Amino acid sequence: MADAEKPNCKVVLANNIAKSLLEEVHDGLKKIDRKPLLVGFLSSSDPAARVYAEWTGKTANENGFAFQLRELDRELLEDALIDANTDPSVDGIIVYYPIFNNRQDQYLQQIVSVDKDVEGLSHQYIFNMYQNIRFLDPENTKKSILPCTPLAVIKILEYLRIYNTILPYGNRLHGRTITVVNRSEVVGRPLAALLANDGARVYSVDIADVQQFDRGVGLRKRRHEVTEKPGWTLKDCLPLSDVVISGVPGSSYKVPLELVRDGAVCINFSSEKNFAPEVKEKASIYVPAIGKVTIVVLLRNLLRIVQNKIDEKAQADKSVGGGLKQVEAKEEMKAEAKAEKEVGQPL
Amino acid sequence: MADAEKPNCKVVLANNIAKSLLEEVHDGLKKIDRKPLLVGFLSSSDPAARVYAEWTGKTANENGFAFQLRELDRELLEDALIDANTDPSVDGIIVYYPIFNNRQDQYLQQIVSVDKDVEGLSHQYIFNMYQNIRFLDPENTKKSILPCTPLAVIKILEYLRIYNTILPYGNRLHGRTITVVNRSEVVGRPLAALLANDGARVYSVDIADVQQFDRGVGLRKRRHEVTEKPGWTLKDCLPLSDVVISGVPGSSYKVPLELVRDGAVCINFSSEKNFAPEVKEKASIYVPAIGKVTIVVLLRNLLRIVQNKIDEKAQADKSVGGGLKQVEAKEEMKAEAKAEKEVGQPL
Repeated sequence: MADAEKPNCKVVLANNIAKSLLEEVHDGLKKIDRKPLLVGFLSSSDPAARVYAEWTGKTANENGFAFQLRELDRELLEDALIDANTDPSVDGIIVYYPIFNNRQDQYLQQIVSVDKDVEGLSHQYIFNMYQNIRFLDPENTKKSILPCTPLAVIKILEYLRIYNTILPYGNRLHGRTITVVNRSEVVGRPLAALLANDGARVYSVDIADVQQFDRGVGLRKRRHEVTEKPGWTLKDCLPLSDVVISGVPGSSYKVPLELVRDGAVCINFSSEKNFAPEVKEKASIYVPAIGKVTIVVLLRNLLRIVQNKIDEKAQADKSVGGGLKQVEAKEEMKAEAKAEKEVGQPL
Repeated sequence: MADAEKPNCKVVLANNIAKSLLEEVHDGLKKIDRKPLLVGFLSSSDPAARVYAEWTGKTANENGFAFQLRELDRELLEDALIDANTDPSVDGIIVYYPIFNNRQDQYLQQIVSVDKDVEGLSHQYIFNMYQNIRFLDPENTKKSILPCTPLAVIKILEYLRIYNTILPYGNRLHGRTITVVNRSEVVGRPLAALLANDGARVYSVDIADVQQFDRGVGLRKRRHEVTEKPGWTLKDCLPLSDVVISGVPGSSYKVPLELVRDGAVCINFSSEKNFAPEVKEKASIYVPAIGKVTIVVLLRNLLRIVQNKIDEKAQADKSVGGGLKQVEAKEEMKAEAKAEKEVGQPL
């Protein structure tokens, strides 16, 4: 009797999910004969940025990576990044935002070399993500880098078996309906696109409107399409959704639980609590925070970048003019950006 | 007596400045055996965007360029831009913003191919501008593209002889003190950087603070540096400034004329009137609007892009593997971004 009254919700902590991802990272690291160096640049006056920097350092050091934190005046940052881009000892670069807290921050994001961008914020990576292009080379050997936080949510959904491994890669969310609350350019919109590219029907909810992201009936489209849902609000999306993912900044926002389906999976990626404690009386699974997964995804991206670099060097050593071919291949890839790509590979 | 009471201010209209720039464009066009095609993409619901589009078309057609306006749903824009990027009949692309009116607009800006970006909004161009790198190739034959609106202001200052042609190229604003009101990432900040790169001391004024952009004593620095001016406001900058350039959106903002130096040069780049009519009693020169110059600068950028493309083709035809060398050169350029560059060339 007591059991029947107790809520059934399984609360899954980021730490546990991070652990399973870390095993994969450790395995990859064993195949490399040195410690990859991640350099963090701290020019932000936001205390949260410092906490994130310290946490990155701690996680990196505990897991076989070298980490250096470089604190400097924000006016010196652009030149420092350019130096790090060409410094062969630096494998990966992370910049802690906000710095100017305006569009100058986006300018700085594009300064970081594509080859060292562990955060996955370079336009090339963002473009590949929206276009559902999963590889950097035409031979499909070098995987593209995805932005950390959206990828962390994907990894959580994989861990929670929302991705159905019975289905083919690239369509493993087929049949799922997911609401993403917040359509920021950093997390909300890319996340909606990634989920739709994997076959889900996604409702992307912002203050102004609701948009539907999906690949249509039969998933024959290479990538998602976006359609406006005029007049729609959370009242229309939440009752339809198996999964509710929320990332609204600000402590006052709460997802209206009365609209959430019984047994829905609820994930909070805001640093604030977007779900009231009563979520446990409704949800089947609840993930209250994702930060620790995000940092492991960052290290995983760094590992991938180092592996790509090693592979590239091996290829260049094999064939004379190999380096040039890489450049050629990149140019070709750009031209073929619209061409159909096989999407049958895990992220 | 009547004359002495009459204000001396010379009001210079954009149209007259545009005409002198157009002559240069016509001369360049004569050397090309076809009409360059500019394609405008209109997915904005802002009526001002439509007016700008129509004005571009009119100016382009009247001056020997072909113009096509493509109106489409904003959800289709990304793919349409990718198509235009690879369509050899399209020489230049302009997108009318705002579209989503958030950071997705910046994402779209980066979709436009660097080789067709007449607005000069590609990261590579913006990077070159801030870093004061004036060429696209190590041989300094292909000039980089500059963002239209800031470049229009530069061209106006050249026309007004604020640029002193006695001084060497690249330092022709040496000794000038200029206040730029508004530090947007689209115009205000790049403009401050361009002016400082040309030798001026620039006070960049935003709601929050004042920053000084300059290349220091003796102009020995390759590019400008930025320093905060804690506690400064317009009260401190305007009395020191020979030139006041304002671009604050919103009809209520007015530059406080009582702080403006007698005989200052005043330029308004806002679509609203940032200077009250009494500016004519203070300023020596007043430019009330710059839109028509901006469109001519756009055509000038298009011409430069077409010329660069023709030069590139000629070089490729001359040497086997020339195309590859171009790619190599670009990669090299990136690596050498920090290297000293000769700045002795007009923009």
